[in-house]
Amino acid sequence: MTPGHVTIREVSLRDGLQIEQPIPLAAKLELLAAVAATGVREVEVTSFVSPTKVPALADAAELAAELWRYPDIEFSALVASPGGAARAVAAGLRSLEYVVCATDEFSLTNVHRTTSEATAAIADITGIAGDAGATLEVIVAVAWDCPFSGPTPAQRVIDIVSTAVDLGVHRLALADTIGTVAPGRVSALVDTLRPRIGAIPLGAHFHNTRGTGLASAYAAVGAGITRLDASVGGLGGCPFAPGATGNIATEDLAYLLIDSGYTVDVDLAATIAAANTARSIVGHDLPGALLRAGDRKRIEGA
Amino acid sequence: MTPGHVTIREVSLRDGLQIEQPIPLAAKLELLAAVAATGVREVEVTSFVSPTKVPALADAAELAAELWRYPDIEFSALVASPGGAARAVAAGLRSLEYVVCATDEFSLTNVHRTTSEATAAIADITGIAGDAGATLEVIVAVAWDCPFSGPTPAQRVIDIVSTAVDLGVHRLALADTIGTVAPGRVSALVDTLRPRIGAIPLGAHFHNTRGTGLASAYAAVGAGITRLDASVGGLGGCPFAPGATGNIATEDLAYLLIDSGYTVDVDLAATIAAANTARSIVGHDLPGALLRAGDRKRIEGA
Repeated sequence: MTPGHVTIREVSLRDGLQIEQPIPLAAKLELLAAVAATGVREVEVTSFVSPTKVPALADAAELAAELWRYPDIEFSALVASPGGAARAVAAGLRSLEYVVCATDEFSLTNVHRTTSEATAAIADITGIAGDAGATLEVIVAVAWDCPFSGPTPAQRVIDIVSTAVDLGVHRLALADTIGTVAPGRVSALVDTLRPRIGAIPLGAHFHNTRGTGLASAYAAVGAGITRLDASVGGLGGCPFAPGATGNIATEDLAYLLIDSGYTVDVDLAATIAAANTARSIVGHDLPGALLRAGDRKRIEGA
Repeated sequence: MTPGHVTIREVSLRDGLQIEQPIPLAAKLELLAAVAATGVREVEVTSFVSPTKVPALADAAELAAELWRYPDIEFSALVASPGGAARAVAAGLRSLEYVVCATDEFSLTNVHRTTSEATAAIADITGIAGDAGATLEVIVAVAWDCPFSGPTPAQRVIDIVSTAVDLGVHRLALADTIGTVAPGRVSALVDTLRPRIGAIPLGAHFHNTRGTGLASAYAAVGAGITRLDASVGGLGGCPFAPGATGNIATEDLAYLLIDSGYTVDVDLAATIAAANTARSIVGHDLPGALLRAGDRKRIEGA
């Protein structure tokens, strides 16, 4: 199969920052400018959730008010409820993401609802999105493993996805929330879901917690997924999933895909520059490999 | 294709330690004991090269004298010349590795010989190995990229491999010496070489310098390679290749393969324990992901 195009959605501003100490809006705008300079076409920019639960993203509406500066980027925001969806569209967002946790144990810990209750809310959120002319992506969290209940039965993912498809969501994604999956199970789940999904775009979200994130991302692409989340520098994690650190780094993913013959929207040098900006803004080191090693520039006379 | 068995060769004692400050023989024996406890069947244990050039491995003969303690492990040693091969077999090694650098620029820097000159020496080393009842593996270094000359033309790899096959070597391996390759080019080179290799076992050696090591390893396995080098904790690098740090970590590779349905010789928990031993012995942190994240143990009540 000839390598095609892979859309990398930049999630540093949401998934990357949510576990960090809150930073000023001006610093977020600096990171956004660096991210926009990479050529990225899709950015998960914030979430409309409880500011008590995620104080780092409490400025969602203020940030949303600045996004008109980048008309070529599709900005999305995470919502956790119909109320959050209403706030997101009121703030001008036209691309929503809603997470359903595939295990009750994780769902109850994360959003105090069972998987069924969270799945049922898709209908309301689809309505809110539709009324505003916005699209909705349903992301299945802990799609492969749950830190509380172990491996996630595929049927639980199938059930969520089937409901989402029936309700007319625009996109779907699978998230390895705690960074445990490896390539073999990535391919297997995508293959299992494929008949239920039809033409709806399917994305994937991996963490590099156990070093397998990039390998899983490549396996996802091999299984037909053309949309991947990544975060410059590998910034971020999930504050509700113990041990879940390290989004896959945008620049490392871009490097891997370009080297393997795929095309991406982002410029590699610009992603490394954005990772440096992210590191500077959060004030601590980040796990991205190219931040240390750099691109493969030829060494003259070394 | 049903996942099969992958042989992980542990290289921490050679490739892992060669860039480190020399450590006492007793510390090496402690690391060796930890490595042996993983269940590993093949260990690259030292090299017989210039003690001036690689002082960390100057005790090769002394270490070799201790290997009788582990009769179930096949120990191999790297040699750089017929003289080194003679010393290795005299020390009791019965599995030799000889590296040929695929570019003249890297070969001249590394061993002061052109690729052709280094390839020609395979004949002598094969003879020395054969006389001693030892096997010989030829490893092609900078098989994909050279830090001095850029991408390595596949024909240069083909030429080395073809000569090695004609001379009756027992094993072949491809090394991404500077950690630049990604999965797409791994599969492509293996597919290109396959017709030249016949039934000779082909291994691969990756560095995680740009985060792609595990993805490349998985691609290699997908392309039919069943032998992979790895180092506990990701210990090691190559002192002669600028920027080349980070062997893929044994425990991370084992995790990925096991999760994907492959069988390996090593026990995962024991590899993490060995990585901890390695970290303690060298006295600095190591890049392996499971060293920080641990196995996927279920979190009770977290």
